[in-house]
Amino acid sequence: MQTDTILLAQLNPIVGDIEYNYNKAVDYLNCAKAQGIKFVVYPELFLLGYPPIDLIERYPLIVEENIIYLEKFAKQCVGTSALIGFCEFNKSDRGKKYYNSVAFIQDGVIKKIIRKSLLPVYSEFSEARYFEAAPFVSSQRIVEFNDCRVGVVICEESWNDDTFFKKPMYSFDPVEILVKEQKPDFIINLSASPTRAKKEQLLNNMLSHCAKKYSTPILYVNQTGSTDCITFCGASRAYGSNGELIARAKSYEEDFFAIVPYKSKKNRIEPLPNGVEKTLNSQKEFTLDYDWDLERTYLTITNAIKDYFEKNGFKRAVLGLSGGLDSSCCAYLLACALGPKNVLGVSMPSKITSAQSKSDAKELANNLGINFFEIPIKDMVDASLSTFNKLFDEIQTKWGDYRYKEPLTFDNIQARSRAMILWGVSNEFSSTIPIATSDKSELYMGYATINGDMSGGFAPVCDVTKTKLFALARWMNNNALIKNAIPEAVLIKPPGAELAINPKTGKPLLAEEALMPYEFLDEVIWRLENLQQKAQEMLKEKFLYEKTHKLSFENKKMWLDKFAKRVQFAQFKWSIMPPGPIVDSRSIVRAEYIQPIASKLKF
Amino acid sequence: MQTDTILLAQLNPIVGDIEYNYNKAVDYLNCAKAQGIKFVVYPELFLLGYPPIDLIERYPLIVEENIIYLEKFAKQCVGTSALIGFCEFNKSDRGKKYYNSVAFIQDGVIKKIIRKSLLPVYSEFSEARYFEAAPFVSSQRIVEFNDCRVGVVICEESWNDDTFFKKPMYSFDPVEILVKEQKPDFIINLSASPTRAKKEQLLNNMLSHCAKKYSTPILYVNQTGSTDCITFCGASRAYGSNGELIARAKSYEEDFFAIVPYKSKKNRIEPLPNGVEKTLNSQKEFTLDYDWDLERTYLTITNAIKDYFEKNGFKRAVLGLSGGLDSSCCAYLLACALGPKNVLGVSMPSKITSAQSKSDAKELANNLGINFFEIPIKDMVDASLSTFNKLFDEIQTKWGDYRYKEPLTFDNIQARSRAMILWGVSNEFSSTIPIATSDKSELYMGYATINGDMSGGFAPVCDVTKTKLFALARWMNNNALIKNAIPEAVLIKPPGAELAINPKTGKPLLAEEALMPYEFLDEVIWRLENLQQKAQEMLKEKFLYEKTHKLSFENKKMWLDKFAKRVQFAQFKWSIMPPGPIVDSRSIVRAEYIQPIASKLKF
Repeated sequence: MQTDTILLAQLNPIVGDIEYNYNKAVDYLNCAKAQGIKFVVYPELFLLGYPPIDLIERYPLIVEENIIYLEKFAKQCVGTSALIGFCEFNKSDRGKKYYNSVAFIQDGVIKKIIRKSLLPVYSEFSEARYFEAAPFVSSQRIVEFNDCRVGVVICEESWNDDTFFKKPMYSFDPVEILVKEQKPDFIINLSASPTRAKKEQLLNNMLSHCAKKYSTPILYVNQTGSTDCITFCGASRAYGSNGELIARAKSYEEDFFAIVPYKSKKNRIEPLPNGVEKTLNSQKEFTLDYDWDLERTYLTITNAIKDYFEKNGFKRAVLGLSGGLDSSCCAYLLACALGPKNVLGVSMPSKITSAQSKSDAKELANNLGINFFEIPIKDMVDASLSTFNKLFDEIQTKWGDYRYKEPLTFDNIQARSRAMILWGVSNEFSSTIPIATSDKSELYMGYATINGDMSGGFAPVCDVTKTKLFALARWMNNNALIKNAIPEAVLIKPPGAELAINPKTGKPLLAEEALMPYEFLDEVIWRLENLQQKAQEMLKEKFLYEKTHKLSFENKKMWLDKFAKRVQFAQFKWSIMPPGPIVDSRSIVRAEYIQPIASKLKF
Repeated sequence: MQTDTILLAQLNPIVGDIEYNYNKAVDYLNCAKAQGIKFVVYPELFLLGYPPIDLIERYPLIVEENIIYLEKFAKQCVGTSALIGFCEFNKSDRGKKYYNSVAFIQDGVIKKIIRKSLLPVYSEFSEARYFEAAPFVSSQRIVEFNDCRVGVVICEESWNDDTFFKKPMYSFDPVEILVKEQKPDFIINLSASPTRAKKEQLLNNMLSHCAKKYSTPILYVNQTGSTDCITFCGASRAYGSNGELIARAKSYEEDFFAIVPYKSKKNRIEPLPNGVEKTLNSQKEFTLDYDWDLERTYLTITNAIKDYFEKNGFKRAVLGLSGGLDSSCCAYLLACALGPKNVLGVSMPSKITSAQSKSDAKELANNLGINFFEIPIKDMVDASLSTFNKLFDEIQTKWGDYRYKEPLTFDNIQARSRAMILWGVSNEFSSTIPIATSDKSELYMGYATINGDMSGGFAPVCDVTKTKLFALARWMNNNALIKNAIPEAVLIKPPGAELAINPKTGKPLLAEEALMPYEFLDEVIWRLENLQQKAQEMLKEKFLYEKTHKLSFENKKMWLDKFAKRVQFAQFKWSIMPPGPIVDSRSIVRAEYIQPIASKLKF
């Protein structure tokens, strides 16, 4: 009998699918029982699934159902106790409809209910929309297990230590009160904490700091899996009373993890994605060294793709292969996430497409083992052009003054004909969705075509900048499930949409000619997102690009002005971008960042 | 000298355009001075513009600028005092970055700063994302004017009276504390309160209740104008100490309103949109009587269109005219909002389009006086079809098992060819954007084509159900700026996309054949949004449709099941819908409602 052992049930729920979540919980409970384990801990809000966003606002039946299944689950917990997150109705005469709660179940009965007091409302979090913040009562946070007094906190409640954070967000620290008033033998934190660049170090340092500060072991149980834009990396863990890591579960997958936390005994410690343990200091300035974040990026995106497809019942992906970096990386990630036979790459050359691009696309597809076909778009483009020109000449009679001298119409006909083909495939073949291949740098610039390459059901690399995507491509060639898929030619050619000819060079217009060097652009994005730096400050500071290139003040200012102008206009496009995984420390993914379109930005 | 007069400056700010907002504030201040008015009150957060959403998270320079302009503005307030909303940095060592504050300015100096204590986080509100809720200190809420003690509250702080609301949202009532502790002579509420169906009555009853309960006059200053999906209706007003309405500014436009509030003297009372004063009770069940809400709906949408275009620098709209209800209503609303010469309707018939549809489209355009052209899409459809078929036959060799027997491919090629033409116009003619014509009923059903009719820069009727849109069409014929534009034929023909032939009838498939009767569907939507009712409850209750039609239990259940299934799948489409104005009491507009796509709804 493992009377002193706790099972961390690191699981992947589906939001709103209570029966599915319940069955997972029971499976793990039964495994625990079979091994004589007496205590199982599940993630925050597990029975409902995190994050519900507004689902529970409109469908309270789901919450009723999660209560019914909680009671059903309680009856199973005979001989083995459990802490499990669920959504509770707020029956008082004030406040929001629900609580984000945890049930402590013992001997088949719900012995205690613990309600979350600190509700995050920032970035990808919106808990106060539907949850009421409960007053913090420390005695309510103690449960008994194996003669230990166990303190229970929920996710955000561990993130407010004013000896760790310079500016804590909330007015009190639940852990501090809990330790001072109740002196628990150890603390359990039930979480649903999404992955982000640099967050692992923060989490690790914070939990370790806290365990040491209070000489109290901490057990942290996280969920795994993805819901739309948000990915949970698992990596549940325990820290001993000296702040030392004594156990860690797998990253990015479900894990059944038995542990004796309060004896500070070393346990199974699973590896993290390569590099994420590096110090925070190494990312205090912009670099092109992305090594520390590439495995995590790869795992985040492939998990996000996998769960987006599985949880929505989609099976196959179709995307255009241009022979360029974005579509090559998307195809790579899809092939690894869904299996090559479920991916269809279509090369759709126009008269601007080079022979090299066509052969690069084909070679990539062959290397990945995905389905591949080539279909020229000439007939569609010609039919559109002749239809357009007839109409435009008529419109000209009324709106002649407004006709552009150098319109982007032809460029975009190509991008839109391609998207039309992909959506056609989606209409013709079951459970198949098109993929939007835009990357973060291009999205910032609004350098993507609405109903063209911006269009699709999911956008895998929408939170990866171009310079990082190059690094990811090389990393995948060496480390992904399938090796060496992206041809070297793709990695060395300068990015370009191949939608227009540059009159100055007579060759297809390159993205950096139309925009600015990606190395410079990506640093602007990095400074804006991470430091909220102003253009005035950026003008004063030396960019990485300036270490290897001569750049005049006027030119730098011109690029920054162009950046501001293009980002302003891009809001219009961001508002109709499909969802994609949040990867970076900050993003423009809809689940995190929404700016009014009819607003004026200034930086 | 009007020493006892207060000016309500009911203005329309642009979020983030501090200089623009400042100039408006100064204009009104100068007008007040010229008339000897000694006190001007502006809306909540006026210098910054409401709602900033995440703009201020990434661009703190905007907040710095609003502080600089506040100081500049203070210097102008010599001889005339002001209360003005602005965004303040939270310089304390805890909490969110900013406060939602009001400055009281007298003799050219900021005399007092009032910080909002109750921050709404629900529906279209997200204030706690970036604002810190300030502790409520009643003495901090009193300013002196003309020997009166004036109590100041900010928007939401008036919405928590537990003798008015059954379940107040917050733990304390700022107005109650303010009155009890400070006994103000009157209260001023600075607001940025969006319009919604039925909200006027709620607001009126609540403010009147509160004035009477405390025998204290209340002055309520609201902003006007639209930002993306959110429209502010103005209608600032005052209630005397018996709860009687003594003044009301214009609805849906800026207004310069001088008032002596604390003498309970009747003043200018501007009319509200027709019908909105009707009792709440009349809308406690679903009816097809929309009369009480049509003028408000028209004003909300036309204002939203106008501001979306003006604030974003767009000038012209282009849309497809099918001769159906949705596109006819959109063209109507656009012509009234932007002027007919700035609207371009394009009839894009395919082989399924009836002669009647074509002539209806043309007649509508003529009646509205908008630009109109017809261009057949046959060549584009043919080119797509032949390209598709060649590709599909190749794909069939690999994915033969997954090919649909009855795919929607051909239907959607038509819708997408049309959208391609409209985006082409947008690329060819400056400051011109395509309009998405989908209505709320169809969006619920996912009965709209991605990159087709769902596509555009703005979606004017995305929060108007089909039965209401019929009523609005008739209302506009009688009451809009332009009269009798929609041909009777459009109003009497059953809706249909004209994308496919119904094999049973040999005629174009009607929407109600593909879905369910709109009268039934719209009641399901109404019950779900307003009552959060479950299917089980809906099955028990008698629908309006059932009063005039025989409907078996099985058939009703089948429709409800279909509803649930289609809404589940529609999440995928909602996530890429363009923004459009919130009109109803509840909506699926992105600014209000977001459900995880990878979630399971149950109702």
